[in-house]
Amino acid sequence: MNGADRLCDGLLANDVDVCFANPGTSEMHFVAALDRKPQMRCILGLFEGVVTGAADGYARMAGKPASTLLHLGPGLGNGIANLHNAKRARTPMINIVGNHATYHRQYNAPLNSDVETLAAPMSDWVRSTESATEIGADLNDAWIAAVGTPGVATLILPADTAWNDVPDAPVARAQRPAPRPFEAAVAAQVRQAISRGMRVALLLGAEALKGKALEIAGRIAAHSGVRLLCQTSVARAERGAGRVVVSPLPYRIEAAVKALENVDMLVLVGEDEPVAFFAYPGRPNKPARPDAAVIEYAPPGADLLEALGHLAQELGAERAQAILSRAELPEAPQDGALTGELVTQLVARMLPDQAIVVDESITAGWRFGEQARGAAQHDVLDLTGGAIGIGLPLSTGAAVACPDRKVVCLQADGSGMYTIQALWTQAREQLDVVTVVFANRTYSTLHGEMRNVGVNDFGENARRMLNLDTPALDWVALAKGHGVEAARAGTVAQFTQLLASAIGRKGPFLIEAVI
Amino acid sequence: MNGADRLCDGLLANDVDVCFANPGTSEMHFVAALDRKPQMRCILGLFEGVVTGAADGYARMAGKPASTLLHLGPGLGNGIANLHNAKRARTPMINIVGNHATYHRQYNAPLNSDVETLAAPMSDWVRSTESATEIGADLNDAWIAAVGTPGVATLILPADTAWNDVPDAPVARAQRPAPRPFEAAVAAQVRQAISRGMRVALLLGAEALKGKALEIAGRIAAHSGVRLLCQTSVARAERGAGRVVVSPLPYRIEAAVKALENVDMLVLVGEDEPVAFFAYPGRPNKPARPDAAVIEYAPPGADLLEALGHLAQELGAERAQAILSRAELPEAPQDGALTGELVTQLVARMLPDQAIVVDESITAGWRFGEQARGAAQHDVLDLTGGAIGIGLPLSTGAAVACPDRKVVCLQADGSGMYTIQALWTQAREQLDVVTVVFANRTYSTLHGEMRNVGVNDFGENARRMLNLDTPALDWVALAKGHGVEAARAGTVAQFTQLLASAIGRKGPFLIEAVI
Repeated sequence: MNGADRLCDGLLANDVDVCFANPGTSEMHFVAALDRKPQMRCILGLFEGVVTGAADGYARMAGKPASTLLHLGPGLGNGIANLHNAKRARTPMINIVGNHATYHRQYNAPLNSDVETLAAPMSDWVRSTESATEIGADLNDAWIAAVGTPGVATLILPADTAWNDVPDAPVARAQRPAPRPFEAAVAAQVRQAISRGMRVALLLGAEALKGKALEIAGRIAAHSGVRLLCQTSVARAERGAGRVVVSPLPYRIEAAVKALENVDMLVLVGEDEPVAFFAYPGRPNKPARPDAAVIEYAPPGADLLEALGHLAQELGAERAQAILSRAELPEAPQDGALTGELVTQLVARMLPDQAIVVDESITAGWRFGEQARGAAQHDVLDLTGGAIGIGLPLSTGAAVACPDRKVVCLQADGSGMYTIQALWTQAREQLDVVTVVFANRTYSTLHGEMRNVGVNDFGENARRMLNLDTPALDWVALAKGHGVEAARAGTVAQFTQLLASAIGRKGPFLIEAVI
Repeated sequence: MNGADRLCDGLLANDVDVCFANPGTSEMHFVAALDRKPQMRCILGLFEGVVTGAADGYARMAGKPASTLLHLGPGLGNGIANLHNAKRARTPMINIVGNHATYHRQYNAPLNSDVETLAAPMSDWVRSTESATEIGADLNDAWIAAVGTPGVATLILPADTAWNDVPDAPVARAQRPAPRPFEAAVAAQVRQAISRGMRVALLLGAEALKGKALEIAGRIAAHSGVRLLCQTSVARAERGAGRVVVSPLPYRIEAAVKALENVDMLVLVGEDEPVAFFAYPGRPNKPARPDAAVIEYAPPGADLLEALGHLAQELGAERAQAILSRAELPEAPQDGALTGELVTQLVARMLPDQAIVVDESITAGWRFGEQARGAAQHDVLDLTGGAIGIGLPLSTGAAVACPDRKVVCLQADGSGMYTIQALWTQAREQLDVVTVVFANRTYSTLHGEMRNVGVNDFGENARRMLNLDTPALDWVALAKGHGVEAARAGTVAQFTQLLASAIGRKGPFLIEAVI
């Protein structure tokens, strides 16, 4: 067998059996090896941003890493924006990047570049395998880094390490790393703070936003009067009727400051301290009150169920009754002009049970969270790193991971154009994704930000950089071009009917909501 | 005025008056400053790969740099593949990347990343401006690096260096750097080699493939019997009837070795030594005969007109008559099934005078070069760095630079999908580009490369990673979705008629050639 076969065996031994790929010449031996392993599901993306974003969506829902396959520095470059998002989501991922043969790199061939340097900023772990015989151990180290951090592990595969022979040897799967420790002593601090009358909030992230851990957080909240918060954008949260409500911090720094003004102690549970997305002249960098205590209880990658259980015990909240969101669908008009707010309201009303909602609606869909509090139970996957162009790929990967659940993608038009090629993968794999495009035909966020810097009257240059009209994108044609059925809605009645029919059938469908 | 205004003034003072842009929040002050400068032409790309590829195409044709405007690490990441191509083309470019305010970077906000590290591999020069007062000097250094290398200069612009005030002061334009020196003594070596019966070839690049320099190379060839060669892919070459013929080295290493087997001395004139695109087990890394002399005469960035003039003088070739390509159009059938070879044959036949041909046809259009030897005079712009996804952006930028010339883009389908958003910019700016898509619905190159590694029978995984069918992309719908008119041709007669009509009108048009 050769190094590439060894790599495939190692992936499968570690239960990594989906490979999102866009290969090139230097990865042909790896492609040939994958071809000899029909138990590996290989999914082509027509652009690498699709590949990395889909691997992110897959892992967020499957709870285990997928592998990617990227072609040299430029292929990695094309995937970097969504690797950034994956790193920020703390998504486990094994990113495999082909490279020139070790002995060919010195000649600086046209496709040569410094792949390791390029990979570093958006990876939690990087290694170039320099010999076929090391590929098994390197892959296991990559898997441990991906799962243990959790995060993006980038393994660079020079062509000759793939094609050189290795001895036939049994493949050992890697030892799963222990969860990272949490600061158990913090629980007593929290108890004392509450008893002294301090107003406490838990900032929940990662596994604390799901299942039993979330429920325990709800008991703590109900029993001890602590507030439950999360970051503005989260990797994955379980929401809807019958679940504990966690309030996201607002995006705008002024509003986030206000949301935290009554918090004397902010306890981090699987999350980092919140900071402003951007700096603005004369405004704060962080939303927490400067005199508030911000305390790390458990890092991401810790056993958050155990950490919350320990805290509940300390506070005597173990048997408390969590307050759960009531089943309550938002009212909606029968007809009339469509707005972003109405689109999300209708989606919330009509959401099927256990849907996966991928939210890259940016400004247009910002009310969805509160509108869907009482909706059917669903998971929300957000844009975690602010690098737009994740919605369509993330939906693609989530649908691969959960073929029995409906994926609803709330997609801003400007962001959707970044990685529109994901629609083709949805068509090819017949993935069950309904994409709702908010066609406002501007970079709407940036209009607000321009007003923030004091510009209200736009000249020609600003208009042409912030608006997407002239010409308007025709999303129905774009979807059709990629092999996905689509239709346009300009009214509430049209949208309601299209969404009902899209939800009622299987397979990809796109609705252009003109707002 | 603020730092952003100072930056705009500096760009304009250095005659950089086109900015290909995709801005975000951290660049709003720069956008506002551009808005105050109507003499700066701002062109929006809906994806950063369009932005950097268009800046490349613009500079190759305008002979001076454009500026880009990219949003933080992820925006830069999206543009990296085409920056790689630009760096390999030695295209002068001023790449401006916004970043968080200097004092906000420490908080590691969601969009934070190590922009300098990310920029390094695909830039010839990188600097982060750390104060508004330094922005003028930094911009001039960037311009000097871009023009002098020539290559990609990346200037990182933290938001506060854009918004902080600077004193109103006159803006000094940068001093153009002197051309890099060439090794004048090599000319005598070449003369002696020829007189000793050595078979000499000149490998021409950069300015040596254009105008008077090319003509002098032709005189040298005619007088002294040296061969004129160039790399497989070149940044820009002037070709067609009445011009000196320069033969590109073949892509495949075996064929390139054969092309150089009779060359005893290879003289580099504005070009690096050729190397194999990829390594293959048991095949050479370089095409030149191991015992051949490979001599650098003039680096890219040298005054190649002067260098070739000096060589001509040394050889006594100054008054020789260069052999020019005869006007001779390839024959073509009237009708029948379309093939890649027929598409390029028809394009060569019908090419209007002074067209700009952007060639990312990869395998399907490989015969165009020889077919167009006797065609109307044209410029060819190639994919220089092997990072696919440059054709549509490069065409976009070339059309901005040369509004009076027809741009014909020969576009492979797989590669075209990488940066298809460029079509929207062509529609918005009403650029005069005819795109011919070679719809073979596979990564055809990779089929060949799989056979190269010994795989002839593809299984399901390989088929699904190398083929673009199921579903077939509908390029007519894709173009329409972006606002570009389009039609499909399946026969020679249909293609001929569509191409004639597309050439006969102004504005963007796309032909899907099903081959």
